[in-house]
Amino acid sequence: MSEPADPKSRRGPWTVRGARPIYDNPWISVVEYDVLNPKGGPGIYGEVGFKNLALGVVPIDHRGWTVLVGQHRFPLDLYSWEIPEGGGDPALDPQHSVARELAEETGLAAAHYAEILRLHLSNAVSDEAAILYLAWDLTPGPAHPEDTELLALRWLPLDEAVAMAVGGAITDAMSVAALLAVDRMRRTGAWPDGFDPALRAVLAP
Amino acid sequence: MSEPADPKSRRGPWTVRGARPIYDNPWISVVEYDVLNPKGGPGIYGEVGFKNLALGVVPIDHRGWTVLVGQHRFPLDLYSWEIPEGGGDPALDPQHSVARELAEETGLAAAHYAEILRLHLSNAVSDEAAILYLAWDLTPGPAHPEDTELLALRWLPLDEAVAMAVGGAITDAMSVAALLAVDRMRRTGAWPDGFDPALRAVLAP
Repeated sequence: MSEPADPKSRRGPWTVRGARPIYDNPWISVVEYDVLNPKGGPGIYGEVGFKNLALGVVPIDHRGWTVLVGQHRFPLDLYSWEIPEGGGDPALDPQHSVARELAEETGLAAAHYAEILRLHLSNAVSDEAAILYLAWDLTPGPAHPEDTELLALRWLPLDEAVAMAVGGAITDAMSVAALLAVDRMRRTGAWPDGFDPALRAVLAP
Repeated sequence: MSEPADPKSRRGPWTVRGARPIYDNPWISVVEYDVLNPKGGPGIYGEVGFKNLALGVVPIDHRGWTVLVGQHRFPLDLYSWEIPEGGGDPALDPQHSVARELAEETGLAAAHYAEILRLHLSNAVSDEAAILYLAWDLTPGPAHPEDTELLALRWLPLDEAVAMAVGGAITDAMSVAALLAVDRMRRTGAWPDGFDPALRAVLAP
């Protein structure tokens, strides 16, 4: 067979020979690709496409405390404590979107944001991408969660949230990675540019 | 309406009124549920079910170096450096499965394993669960990757791998979380029980 003319029919060492749309809803789509694998063998690849960016934020108040959001996660059928998270339209500024999610879920407004990590959450099956932030200089306000969210809030020292992440009480991957990244900033002193000097002192190990 | 008799029709504050199978392959299944959300409003929930556990391991050699695996990830169409990872049959011992993946991808056998994190990778959409390990006391051998894997290996000091994780050169969520968890062990000295005393000294910050 000749090489396919469409460059999109190659993905690195994979060849795409066809695509079959399987499913679509407002949040995800599923496509099954007919592929040749890197060794040239035929196969299928079922891919889950995400319509939103996954966004999360570790807000830190003047005491060095953060806030976790608790909710029942439908796919796992279990209660999960997490950093404030939500989906953002990829066409919009992600920091604007994460600020909206933080306000909706907790009522908080943060004067400062710094991006701390970019992740791909499940790269063998999906294209889901996440951006995680640190936020500080917080102002409280009324929360207004969506109808799909029945949320609890829990304020605790950053250290206790990190202990939950390494001890198994927090299992959400975005939350664990973000809290460990902030813990590393504490231990190395490598805070984002412009981070509050008073908070550096409060959080010094 | 009366309360549904089947207790499985409740998931926390969500009510499941029906389920429509959408897709199934050897790795994932997709089901669209007809639900009532926590506020009682009708809606749908598209859920991706995973047939395997996601497993990953940070192997550390006697120098305090680890090995990353590079491969082109099909769903993102990008090249990704990651800790050794693979899927494990949930009916089997996950440590046995991760040892098999480590051997397939790198040829390494590890005399000791310790579980370091359990994660849920994308809990708003999928039930995908991950278990991450630290492994040490390594013996080299021949690698034998699957046909779907065209892998590169890269040995580097643990510190450099952690720098890649916080600097954006590693974006795979399992890899970032695992490397940050091991970095925290270095900085706190809170290594797993039985961890090699000589390696503790090599890795002391």
